Amino acid sequence: MTRFALTLEFDGTPFFGLQRQKDGPSVQQAVEEAAFRVLGEEVRLHSAGRTDAGVHAIAMRSHLNAEKDIKPYRLMEALNAHLRPDPVAVTHCAIVPDDWHARFSCTGRSYVYRIANRRAPLTLERGRLWQVPQELDAQAMHRAAQALVGLHDFTTFRSVHCQSDSPVKTLDRLDVEQVATPMGAEVRVHAAARSFLHHQVRSMVGCLALVGMGRWPEERMAEALAARDRQELGLNAPPHGLYFVSASYPADS
Amino acid sequence: MTRFALTLEFDGTPFFGLQRQKDGPSVQQAVEEAAFRVLGEEVRLHSAGRTDAGVHAIAMRSHLNAEKDIKPYRLMEALNAHLRPDPVAVTHCAIVPDDWHARFSCTGRSYVYRIANRRAPLTLERGRLWQVPQELDAQAMHRAAQALVGLHDFTTFRSVHCQSDSPVKTLDRLDVEQVATPMGAEVRVHAAARSFLHHQVRSMVGCLALVGMGRWPEERMAEALAARDRQELGLNAPPHGLYFVSASYPADS
Repeated sequence: MTRFALTLEFDGTPFFGLQRQKDGPSVQQAVEEAAFRVLGEEVRLHSAGRTDAGVHAIAMRSHLNAEKDIKPYRLMEALNAHLRPDPVAVTHCAIVPDDWHARFSCTGRSYVYRIANRRAPLTLERGRLWQVPQELDAQAMHRAAQALVGLHDFTTFRSVHCQSDSPVKTLDRLDVEQVATPMGAEVRVHAAARSFLHHQVRSMVGCLALVGMGRWPEERMAEALAARDRQELGLNAPPHGLYFVSASYPADS
Repeated sequence: MTRFALTLEFDGTPFFGLQRQKDGPSVQQAVEEAAFRVLGEEVRLHSAGRTDAGVHAIAMRSHLNAEKDIKPYRLMEALNAHLRPDPVAVTHCAIVPDDWHARFSCTGRSYVYRIANRRAPLTLERGRLWQVPQELDAQAMHRAAQALVGLHDFTTFRSVHCQSDSPVKTLDRLDVEQVATPMGAEVRVHAAARSFLHHQVRSMVGCLALVGMGRWPEERMAEALAARDRQELGLNAPPHGLYFVSASYPADS
């Protein structure tokens, strides 16, 4: 048995999420079915994150075990050939020790949330960013975001469907930047932590957007956090602006 | 009668081109039909460029005339509402003098051609870049490109369907740069001229890619140009990597 670590890039639009779902297509199913055609074995894909329906990934980290003797490069090429036309690609593949686990060995996860801050509907980037027509004050968003960094009870920013044992997490980074692009102003929210609660990034971004619009004063972010009450959540940002960016592992350093 | 200048952004994927076509949907038809619903008038859209099927635009410049009394901002908002779900958006709208013509007043046009230089199939950027798996030498491409800058007979780089009176054009800029993106290496070719021949940018980029792959020596670019023979064309790059970026007008400066 050989364990292969895969790096996956995918467009979340057509999927019901990364994890297998009873009711529709998933990234996991697509990769497992491609692997069955390549290896002739039923494999199980484990991944660093469990992204929701519509959420994208630039570099999801995953692994699977194979009995078949195959070079990592061949496995990557064959998986990519069999994944077509699904918008999932294996961008890296390597053999890892049998105790390396994409989810349980992972010590850090990062996301970026992209907001198109313009009035005109999106064309070339449709389904890739959340469009907010009201002008956003990215500096106010960044200042307000700092209240969430650190060790906190994130109950306010947690989905009722969250399966985590505890709502207490350490948020390492929540930075907001404004970027000028050929397609207009874009606001990016960068989030990093050892792990996140279900919907945590989208919930934080939704409230930050209210601050950016001037509908929430900056202090309200700290108040919403302190309330530890889902009812205090202002807005949950839609999935299609969210990207899983990277996962880190002890051996990386 | 009032003349409105429009700036259009569009995803060229579903269209048979910018100009009206007998056999399929066009950007011109989409905008003219939206304008009819907004204004109750049959209008004709004139544009700076005539992009092919599959070619995108970040900021195409166009104009139309309207009898109806309407503010530019209202016209833009209403056109965008009626253009849905077509991937065409009006990003700017202003009243211009009656002798301002999007095509005939235009004194400069620029394009960018985007190449994804990676082996893995595209997912998030599918249909947005030309994927070239062989490693490209962007510096060699840039050096070879300089042979095309200036006043030349571009017959080699001209489609047999080109309707231009003359194959002689002045190419102001042909710069190649390599950019590192979260999705991998990208090579961008920036082209600017007063006007271009049909397929000129795609034909130049196709040959530059051959140089980048090492299949053409750098000098062959100058030789292909000097041959003034379409048979000397190495490769015509596909349309989906090409973007119309900007048009300039005397009043801009």
